[in-house]
Amino acid sequence: MEATYRALCRHGYADLTMQAIADECDRSKASLHYHFDTKRELLDAFLAYLHDGFVERLDGVDEADPAARLVGLVDAALSGRDDGCEFGTAALELRAQAPYEPAFRERLAAFDESLADRVAAAVVDGVEAGRFRAGTDPAETAELVVTLVNGAHTRSVALDEPARESAARAVREHVAERLLADGEALAVGDPALREAPR
Amino acid sequence: MEATYRALCRHGYADLTMQAIADECDRSKASLHYHFDTKRELLDAFLAYLHDGFVERLDGVDEADPAARLVGLVDAALSGRDDGCEFGTAALELRAQAPYEPAFRERLAAFDESLADRVAAAVVDGVEAGRFRAGTDPAETAELVVTLVNGAHTRSVALDEPARESAARAVREHVAERLLADGEALAVGDPALREAPR
Repeated sequence: MEATYRALCRHGYADLTMQAIADECDRSKASLHYHFDTKRELLDAFLAYLHDGFVERLDGVDEADPAARLVGLVDAALSGRDDGCEFGTAALELRAQAPYEPAFRERLAAFDESLADRVAAAVVDGVEAGRFRAGTDPAETAELVVTLVNGAHTRSVALDEPARESAARAVREHVAERLLADGEALAVGDPALREAPR
Repeated sequence: MEATYRALCRHGYADLTMQAIADECDRSKASLHYHFDTKRELLDAFLAYLHDGFVERLDGVDEADPAARLVGLVDAALSGRDDGCEFGTAALELRAQAPYEPAFRERLAAFDESLADRVAAAVVDGVEAGRFRAGTDPAETAELVVTLVNGAHTRSVALDEPARESAARAVREHVAERLLADGEALAVGDPALREAPR
């Protein structure tokens, strides 16, 4: 799986071959085929592996305050592995393949669902705790946040802009100005606010 | 250009050839090469052509009320041509190529800039007219809207979800609940509200 990651970073999706993956882990192409009949099967397993890592990052967000947790979830979803690899490009290529590969589509949908579930749970907790306005819709908020995160990923790959930071800021403002109940505020010491001083 | 559009709908970007484009317009491949040395040059011209159509759709939004105009701009940006062609998939593939093709990246950035400029202008007008809250930041609002539109496009292709409508609704709510000044409302007869009764 790590060899697949490195091969995607190096070659992109369009030029990815079983040989390129084998080269990254000093195995033979035959030994890869022992485990995976086709490149599609290998990539399906790879998407499941990536999803595991994504969920692990989301579940590493352990802020007790629901507002801080929501912001932390967005930061976790927007952050990649800090290894200088241009993986975002390959990830967008994989997304563009989804219409041709139903199995990929399900795997990709799982990323959005995992994020949406946790955002919705933070909203429910925040409303219960009186941190978020009564009546804030968990599913709608989750939909907005997931769409923003998707947009930030696409823009950061396709346009080479600091779109991630700006999407994260948009969500922070959304939390601070629209979700928080009257009189509530993100804590001053909040990492979210330290990262984006305004 | 229309033949390129049809060829992309039929074959997707990965399998697009000059021959496929020639077949769509009953010309010879040689006659295409008379105008465009390479497929890259043809696609560069095609992106400029698409951008012209995009700007035309945006400039067809002529609501006098800045709030209705902002919602109309989002609807125009999210709507494609109503010809049953799966062009969104090819569009996402083109976006994924941007890191490899600097010329494409500039063309793609122009879509976002054209939308952002018009959203920011609607915000300026809305604040001046007292429709939007004083102090609403035009550039920040434009950034949020453009990121949402990008996210909706990506999700609607990759996940086969009704993401467009849900992003449009998120923007409408953003306008109605956060941008509008106290006491202002989207007009009851507003097409935006008719489309998304709540």
